[in-house]
Amino acid sequence: MEAAIIANIGFRQPLRHHAFFSKIPPMLPRLLPLFRFPFLPSKALIQSSPLPTHGINFLLVLLLLAAGYGAWAQAPTALTARLDKVSLTFALGPTGQPTYSITYGGKPAINPSRLGVAFADGQGFDGPLTVVSSETKDVDETWQPVWGEVKNIRNHYQQLTVHLRQPTPNGRLLDVVFRVFADGVGFRYEFPRQPNLAYFTVQDEQTEFNLPANHKAFWIPGDYDSNEYAYTTSRVSEVNTTPIEAIQLKAAPLRIQTPLMLKSDDGLYLNIHEAALVNYPALMLDVNPQTFGLRSHLVPGATGAKAYLQTPEHTPWRTVVVADNAPAILASKLILNLNEPSTIAETGWIQPQKFVGVWWEMHVNKASWNYSDASNLKLRGTDWAALKPNGRHGANTANVKRYIDFAAQHGLQSVLVEGWNVGWEDWAGNWKEEVFDFVTPYPDFDVQELQRYAASKNVKLMMHHETSASVTNYERRMDAAYRFMKQYGYDAAKTGYVGRIVPRGEHHDGQWMVNHYVHVADQMAQNQLMVDMHESVRPTGLHRTYPNWLANEAARGNEFNAWSTGNPPEHETILPFTRLMGGPMDYTPGIFQIKLESWNPAQNKGRQVHTTLAKQLALYVTMYSPLQMAADLPEAYEQRLDAFQFIKDVPVDWDDTRILAAEPGDYLTIARKAKGKDEWYLGAITDEQARRQPVQLDFLTPGTRYAATIYADGKGADWEKNPTAYQIRKVTVTSKSALQLQLAAGGGAAVSFKPLKK
Amino acid sequence: MEAAIIANIGFRQPLRHHAFFSKIPPMLPRLLPLFRFPFLPSKALIQSSPLPTHGINFLLVLLLLAAGYGAWAQAPTALTARLDKVSLTFALGPTGQPTYSITYGGKPAINPSRLGVAFADGQGFDGPLTVVSSETKDVDETWQPVWGEVKNIRNHYQQLTVHLRQPTPNGRLLDVVFRVFADGVGFRYEFPRQPNLAYFTVQDEQTEFNLPANHKAFWIPGDYDSNEYAYTTSRVSEVNTTPIEAIQLKAAPLRIQTPLMLKSDDGLYLNIHEAALVNYPALMLDVNPQTFGLRSHLVPGATGAKAYLQTPEHTPWRTVVVADNAPAILASKLILNLNEPSTIAETGWIQPQKFVGVWWEMHVNKASWNYSDASNLKLRGTDWAALKPNGRHGANTANVKRYIDFAAQHGLQSVLVEGWNVGWEDWAGNWKEEVFDFVTPYPDFDVQELQRYAASKNVKLMMHHETSASVTNYERRMDAAYRFMKQYGYDAAKTGYVGRIVPRGEHHDGQWMVNHYVHVADQMAQNQLMVDMHESVRPTGLHRTYPNWLANEAARGNEFNAWSTGNPPEHETILPFTRLMGGPMDYTPGIFQIKLESWNPAQNKGRQVHTTLAKQLALYVTMYSPLQMAADLPEAYEQRLDAFQFIKDVPVDWDDTRILAAEPGDYLTIARKAKGKDEWYLGAITDEQARRQPVQLDFLTPGTRYAATIYADGKGADWEKNPTAYQIRKVTVTSKSALQLQLAAGGGAAVSFKPLKK
Repeated sequence: MEAAIIANIGFRQPLRHHAFFSKIPPMLPRLLPLFRFPFLPSKALIQSSPLPTHGINFLLVLLLLAAGYGAWAQAPTALTARLDKVSLTFALGPTGQPTYSITYGGKPAINPSRLGVAFADGQGFDGPLTVVSSETKDVDETWQPVWGEVKNIRNHYQQLTVHLRQPTPNGRLLDVVFRVFADGVGFRYEFPRQPNLAYFTVQDEQTEFNLPANHKAFWIPGDYDSNEYAYTTSRVSEVNTTPIEAIQLKAAPLRIQTPLMLKSDDGLYLNIHEAALVNYPALMLDVNPQTFGLRSHLVPGATGAKAYLQTPEHTPWRTVVVADNAPAILASKLILNLNEPSTIAETGWIQPQKFVGVWWEMHVNKASWNYSDASNLKLRGTDWAALKPNGRHGANTANVKRYIDFAAQHGLQSVLVEGWNVGWEDWAGNWKEEVFDFVTPYPDFDVQELQRYAASKNVKLMMHHETSASVTNYERRMDAAYRFMKQYGYDAAKTGYVGRIVPRGEHHDGQWMVNHYVHVADQMAQNQLMVDMHESVRPTGLHRTYPNWLANEAARGNEFNAWSTGNPPEHETILPFTRLMGGPMDYTPGIFQIKLESWNPAQNKGRQVHTTLAKQLALYVTMYSPLQMAADLPEAYEQRLDAFQFIKDVPVDWDDTRILAAEPGDYLTIARKAKGKDEWYLGAITDEQARRQPVQLDFLTPGTRYAATIYADGKGADWEKNPTAYQIRKVTVTSKSALQLQLAAGGGAAVSFKPLKK
Repeated sequence: MEAAIIANIGFRQPLRHHAFFSKIPPMLPRLLPLFRFPFLPSKALIQSSPLPTHGINFLLVLLLLAAGYGAWAQAPTALTARLDKVSLTFALGPTGQPTYSITYGGKPAINPSRLGVAFADGQGFDGPLTVVSSETKDVDETWQPVWGEVKNIRNHYQQLTVHLRQPTPNGRLLDVVFRVFADGVGFRYEFPRQPNLAYFTVQDEQTEFNLPANHKAFWIPGDYDSNEYAYTTSRVSEVNTTPIEAIQLKAAPLRIQTPLMLKSDDGLYLNIHEAALVNYPALMLDVNPQTFGLRSHLVPGATGAKAYLQTPEHTPWRTVVVADNAPAILASKLILNLNEPSTIAETGWIQPQKFVGVWWEMHVNKASWNYSDASNLKLRGTDWAALKPNGRHGANTANVKRYIDFAAQHGLQSVLVEGWNVGWEDWAGNWKEEVFDFVTPYPDFDVQELQRYAASKNVKLMMHHETSASVTNYERRMDAAYRFMKQYGYDAAKTGYVGRIVPRGEHHDGQWMVNHYVHVADQMAQNQLMVDMHESVRPTGLHRTYPNWLANEAARGNEFNAWSTGNPPEHETILPFTRLMGGPMDYTPGIFQIKLESWNPAQNKGRQVHTTLAKQLALYVTMYSPLQMAADLPEAYEQRLDAFQFIKDVPVDWDDTRILAAEPGDYLTIARKAKGKDEWYLGAITDEQARRQPVQLDFLTPGTRYAATIYADGKGADWEKNPTAYQIRKVTVTSKSALQLQLAAGGGAAVSFKPLKK
């Protein structure tokens, strides 16, 4: 609580109510005229001030300090907040611009860094500001997510609010709010309701994250329209997106995305991202390779402006998670805590789930999304029934029934079907507005029969809404699409945004699209529908607010292994430190037929997933999501039902999570306790290096004996040469046991722990 | 039919089926190799050709000509079509670019003018092209509009289709289709389905309308977002939009809108516009003041490109209506004929109608759209019921009942209510996306009670959907908005698009918005709803295709008289020659309380409508619309019920129309026969000049005696000094009678003719 005391000196209340007034009656006659002329430069009165025009309140502070009330070690306007090892300092810089800095255990984590927001009208908060007042508060509460990695989440922070004002007559007001947690800091700009600011356009945000040194960084290029990149690991000084092939829109050479994972040479781990991204563009970072400074870059809209806002409004939280060990980064709930509580009162219909789907067979060229091989079709005017079928259409009634049978047999909740609706002949790459209507099935997909059949097997069908990024088209058809879902018994949808956005000129990560994704989550919620968004903006913890928003893709998923250079084996050890910081990912693990040639020798020559089979199992634990696909084909699983048992067993909702070992880019071991059961599941993965991973089982309930089933890489397993070698061992363990897991190169291990009857 | 014969020589059929082949067997061996190398330059073979690379088919034509089959007076590739006095010639220009020209009675109407469409990929139809083949056909048919100015419309034209091709291997194909009517020409570009062109982006259209001389022009600036300008009358050489204050977006200095009305010194009247504007941006014209050339300029989308298209597709028709007298321009049905037939099969629910509305009282500062005087509100999160009412809200239940009573008493079908729904406190000027929700009434507007009350009086309420140009917001709420209409008994809506468009960067007249308006018409039709669009793109005859699309504003309406410099008295004599060429306008005539000070002396000082009262009555005839507002307040009409009788009587649907006298900018006299009745109504208006208008009543049924009620300007009437002086005379007339109408300065006259019982 010491931090609070420091911060409260001088600034707990707005000055007009300030308790100090009662202590300085002799000064009042001199101060009062100044209040009537707040634009009077302080310089004239205080010759020695290095801060020329901070206005009257700063002057007042100096006067108060002169009167003996200062207890300030730093610059006169420095304000601090602190929790455990994390300390945040706010100050006005030499030219009156606000800055902040963060230390962790006394070490600099973020050096003094500028804060600011520029407006299109030129009257924003990018010039000098004065501190009007400030206040702090302490919060320590615990809440329960609808679903998650843990049952209870502690939200413990000290908040510092700094009220700022332009040093002009009728100066506009800005608040900067900091929340200091034990594992980092969140801060945001708040634009309060005020007489001189109602509507405004953000032209630029000038938030800096100045790193103290040339850290190691795990980054992807700042593509406004895609996050589906493999990560580059480099020093900050070596960031350069130029050689990287664009997935959608080429990034500026020094522009990268958040979440950005960083590691200092002296053992600090930092993660920079944002929380609660609503009504604002996504944050990207421009790197200064000389100074190791990072500067905010907001994704522009069609006109080039960044955000159209109206007071009262605020930006998303800018987040810096910091720790002296990697597992603490993964355990952080800072981003979730900075999001608003659920907007959904009754959540019984929200069901974490595992699913199979008519999907991977398209990626491995065994089937097609499209029903015919016709081209240049239009949604309106095409007689779909008259098209000549190509004979490879995956989403046909018989094939879907096969998946339903498989899901029913193995206790998986649902079946995704992609390619069920007309439009796939000509869906991508044409920046076309009318692509899909979301309600018209292909002639070989019998909606009613499949509804009946799935219900008879107690399996749900999962809707697929590929928009091909034609979002205006989706929005105008949304009501009909959701009515269709309700009519035919669908309760969840996977959405997709492949391609360039319509409205043309907008970007996947701009304000307009950010609002669209929230609109979808909100409309789905109002219809009691769950959603899994692909090619959306990367998440920022909004699944707390919209718990029906189960997952996103928004990163390079497993399917890249099917048809590109693939994902390097380290990929899944980085994702939890980057993309997953914002929320669950529908990564689609569980590929058993790792060499893809057998599905289609002609088209898949040499292609394989960069993994061992055991690692695919481990991903169900290491890549947290309430929505997990068993992505491979039923026939692939049916050949290895012993290994498939882990996918059948592994839960998708948890009471507890322990990050047992982690290093971004290298390895990751996590154990999780099943929701409402004394069962534990463990996943351990490694990069391209084989390694031995010892695991102490002290997380198990003391005194209970567990049957541990260990799904490990087999002898000679290797992601490249021998990916499908695995072994399954069963042992009995207790909380005092230890396991020695041997992870092959590009491999992993999965373990289930089920209590033995006493 | 002579024209057809000329045009058919050489080009009736695609060459591969050409009858001439049978006549030139000796040539075939020489020609066949050329067909296998269609890119072979003809220059090498024909030294004297001025057209270097027209490719093989042009070569073939020359060979055929050399063989004696030519009957060509003009350049070798000239093709013509003709009907009555109108003659159209297509030719390839000296560099191989297609051109057209039009004559009327032998006089040049459009000098040779370039045709072309440039693509974003650089591979469009802006370079040299070759003529592949051509064909003509003659059409003479008659159709009946659902509603209109006449009962039967004759569609009589000769069509010339020219099949063009790029002179390259795999050259893309373009058709230009001309329809030559007795009163002008329509032509469009058609992009057929073809192997080498599926998706394309139009970067520029290069259609020229080269005028033979420095005509008089009636024009408004080429604002991409508004047509609400007073017309400037000038020579083409004097066009300059610079001094004109922008309504929405400043036009380039030489850019003007269509419909453009022109008059030559030798008595030709020309109107340039377009028909069936769908999936394409609106056409504007760039003026060359030296050459009197006009060049197409398409309104850009957010990215700067003009249109995103997919084959098969076509542009709207470019229209040139031409006549040697002004009434023939107004009588032209060319634009309607170029639109597609109605998409609505059962049209019984479509009802032309007159209406009153809670509307003008806001324009004259007697009431407000907004319920409170709060500012900076947000649609979400505002407690509307808690706002302090300003006491001036027009759309309150009691006031609406007053309008319902008035409509019921006087046989008007419906009551428009603007300002009924929340959001008006903060609706315009902020480029805000979430403004209205279209379903939430203000606390003082009782939807259910008004539904009951209106039904009890057999009056319909007309919905109002002001979008404030936030079109994405409207589209995503459209389903709910239309359900609300159906639920509460509304069967028509007035829509509005005031402000800058969202999606930001789009324009009112760009492709995306053009498609939106059609989408609204289509969705309204599917819900059996009628629509009247304000601030939309100006119409192009689409009410033929969507007869539920009753009217548009899309020009400077009567309300400008309430709060701006107003509309000059000539305004209504120009509108029928310009804006109304495309379709009916909701001009909102019928203002009786012409001096507006009495409504609100403080705010309306000196304001008045620039009209006499009699002219307001005449407008119901001269400004054709199936939807006519009696725009003034009930209390204004109640003071002059004798004059109001004309508004009660005048129909909004007609069996016949006679343009008796017309000169743009000067005067206009029209008589119309009521639908299904032997009643005639006549309107005569003048500009700021008083004039005497003789009218022969030979349109009346011979042998029938009619009671004519003449609503004329009163003694000393003058739009400025004495606008409300009027006189009503009743006389008995026959088809042999004549009337002498005395029109005051800025005045007019209205006459009803009802048959006397024999």
